[in-house]
Amino acid sequence: MHRLILVFGLLGLVAPAIGQRGGSPYYEDTNNVPASPEIHADRTVTFRLFAPKASEVVLMGSPGILEFIKEPKPLQKDSKGVWSLTIGPVPPGFYTYGYAIDGGLRMPDPSNPNLELRRWGDTSSFIVPGDQKAVFEERAVPHGSVHVEFYDSKNLGMPRMFYVYTPPGYETGKQKYPVLYLLHGNGQIEASWTWTGRANVILDNLIADGKAKPMVIVMPYGHIPREIKPVPPIPASPGDSASIEKELLTEIKPAVETKYRVLTDRSHRAIGGLSMGAAQSWSIGLHNLDKFAFIAAFSGAGNRTEWEKADPAMLNKMLKVLWIGCGTEDPGYAGVKGMDDLLTKMNVKHTFNQSGGGHSWPNWQQYLAKYAPLLFRD
Amino acid sequence: MHRLILVFGLLGLVAPAIGQRGGSPYYEDTNNVPASPEIHADRTVTFRLFAPKASEVVLMGSPGILEFIKEPKPLQKDSKGVWSLTIGPVPPGFYTYGYAIDGGLRMPDPSNPNLELRRWGDTSSFIVPGDQKAVFEERAVPHGSVHVEFYDSKNLGMPRMFYVYTPPGYETGKQKYPVLYLLHGNGQIEASWTWTGRANVILDNLIADGKAKPMVIVMPYGHIPREIKPVPPIPASPGDSASIEKELLTEIKPAVETKYRVLTDRSHRAIGGLSMGAAQSWSIGLHNLDKFAFIAAFSGAGNRTEWEKADPAMLNKMLKVLWIGCGTEDPGYAGVKGMDDLLTKMNVKHTFNQSGGGHSWPNWQQYLAKYAPLLFRD
Repeated sequence: MHRLILVFGLLGLVAPAIGQRGGSPYYEDTNNVPASPEIHADRTVTFRLFAPKASEVVLMGSPGILEFIKEPKPLQKDSKGVWSLTIGPVPPGFYTYGYAIDGGLRMPDPSNPNLELRRWGDTSSFIVPGDQKAVFEERAVPHGSVHVEFYDSKNLGMPRMFYVYTPPGYETGKQKYPVLYLLHGNGQIEASWTWTGRANVILDNLIADGKAKPMVIVMPYGHIPREIKPVPPIPASPGDSASIEKELLTEIKPAVETKYRVLTDRSHRAIGGLSMGAAQSWSIGLHNLDKFAFIAAFSGAGNRTEWEKADPAMLNKMLKVLWIGCGTEDPGYAGVKGMDDLLTKMNVKHTFNQSGGGHSWPNWQQYLAKYAPLLFRD
Repeated sequence: MHRLILVFGLLGLVAPAIGQRGGSPYYEDTNNVPASPEIHADRTVTFRLFAPKASEVVLMGSPGILEFIKEPKPLQKDSKGVWSLTIGPVPPGFYTYGYAIDGGLRMPDPSNPNLELRRWGDTSSFIVPGDQKAVFEERAVPHGSVHVEFYDSKNLGMPRMFYVYTPPGYETGKQKYPVLYLLHGNGQIEASWTWTGRANVILDNLIADGKAKPMVIVMPYGHIPREIKPVPPIPASPGDSASIEKELLTEIKPAVETKYRVLTDRSHRAIGGLSMGAAQSWSIGLHNLDKFAFIAAFSGAGNRTEWEKADPAMLNKMLKVLWIGCGTEDPGYAGVKGMDDLLTKMNVKHTFNQSGGGHSWPNWQQYLAKYAPLLFRD
């Protein structure tokens, strides 16, 4: 306890001197914040954490980095209480990770401002640059904007948000744009596709290279409650697809079409999503063929029963693109492959993009970079 | 290590079943995520953390909550490895907090999706509701939007962002709006004034109640590099006010005035900031009286030497509002009071809003709620 009290005592001396101490004095000065992760020129990566009294610190990875490190790896403590581990060289790419402390407690890297925000259990992320910029890396091209829209849902009786990407030139032009509704996965939030997935950067790059048409992307919130616990007295299932469908069609779509210059015919409206958002896209797309001419499912299966009952001739007539992506190491691969097989058996035109890798952002970024160029082509 | 491997093994069984597991399988299922913080009807608050092998878990607070709990308080562990502590009743308000683990490691609450994002060392936040909604609490009034703008700074040679608030009706109307440039504190980011400070909610409420004129708020990034370490080969001082001033005037202001429908005369342009952003506002405002008719400094002193040299008659002629706020428990109170005394001695018209409390968001929210209504009144 002496140490904690000392910190607060010191603050009184330090803060007036710098005149600008932020709102969180429970953190000490940056002398105790090690650089982490440090990406070296040879693409090795050093992770560090100041935790002098921890008995064990382990590097944990999402599938993206786990595919590389194979299994969680322990860090080693130095005499100053800084734990560290250098791995690699790591192939160029986008990775997420966190630490497990003392065998039970998970946390993101407090040194790293790049967080994957989630409903609970945020993780950290970093990029290992390659010789050429990846599609998710910022380049000095014209940039679109990301907008956060706030609304009071009549359906759900609660304040909610959705995110919107507008392409470069939107503010200064007059044209109307086609719209992609892009849905996130379980545990993720409205901000996930931009803040973590860098969908805005991907679209900026595709548009600059003439690979995708300028479009608006709408990113709703795919869960009912924000908090996981205590469970509010409303449906809390992550797969409450019917409520999310109603929310999208009766609250979000009208708001988008009022506030944004978007085209409102079905041939200029697409849907797609990852994981839980893939399941939602399968259902919302199928139920609303009059509204969506494009459906994508990244790393997630749909409701097989309702797709079995669908009319293949109608699907082939209405859907300009039906696009499925999944990694062979994804724990849900078999379910997604089952959808591909079903569509093939039904003679429904579709694309199955089978990739390496698992259930992680590197795949979802690549899938968006492949799906977006197919949209709104005529 | 067995436990960790078990988690990853289980994932293979669990993920196909739910078909929608998110991108971070290093977290276990929500059975191990306790509800935290839980705000009870009697305004007591229970904090919980699952950390079975930790030797000590302490509740740490920003000044806002420290003013209430007085000093860091230990949590107690139950037989399942969940640490908990109930405090209060806590007065209605907005609070930030975090945990200190084993005496050395600080972390936000992984159960709580409400984070104060920072350059490093994120913290958690919660609201204890009162009988009436506070100015920072969402109400079912018309909502403005928050926009994230991306640009490549020629001055600094790096990609950067700024946030913009537009008031309700902006998208569907044609009028031009006055602009407030609102700057964050040391360690904070572009998102801080909205994501943590809820400036958009505050303005929505003030505008709905007829207390503030509809305005655009621009929130730049106030540091040079994003990362703290390793220090990039560019100036890294948090107080590099000259670079931030140049960035605001030659990159951000022109971008805002191109992309947004804003008024461009000085009587419709204001500046203000908290802590480090207060210091920047004192300087940028003074150097650019031809561009800003309103200056506010929340919990931060300015460069006294340059203000001593200023012409009081010119200041009184040019500044419609010069507004200072500081809490008496703020470690920087003496410096801010010194600015107030200097202005009084110089016969420069100004307002000094001395409040209780310290260097924390509850004060900054109240200061914004007092400053915004004074802006653009004629």
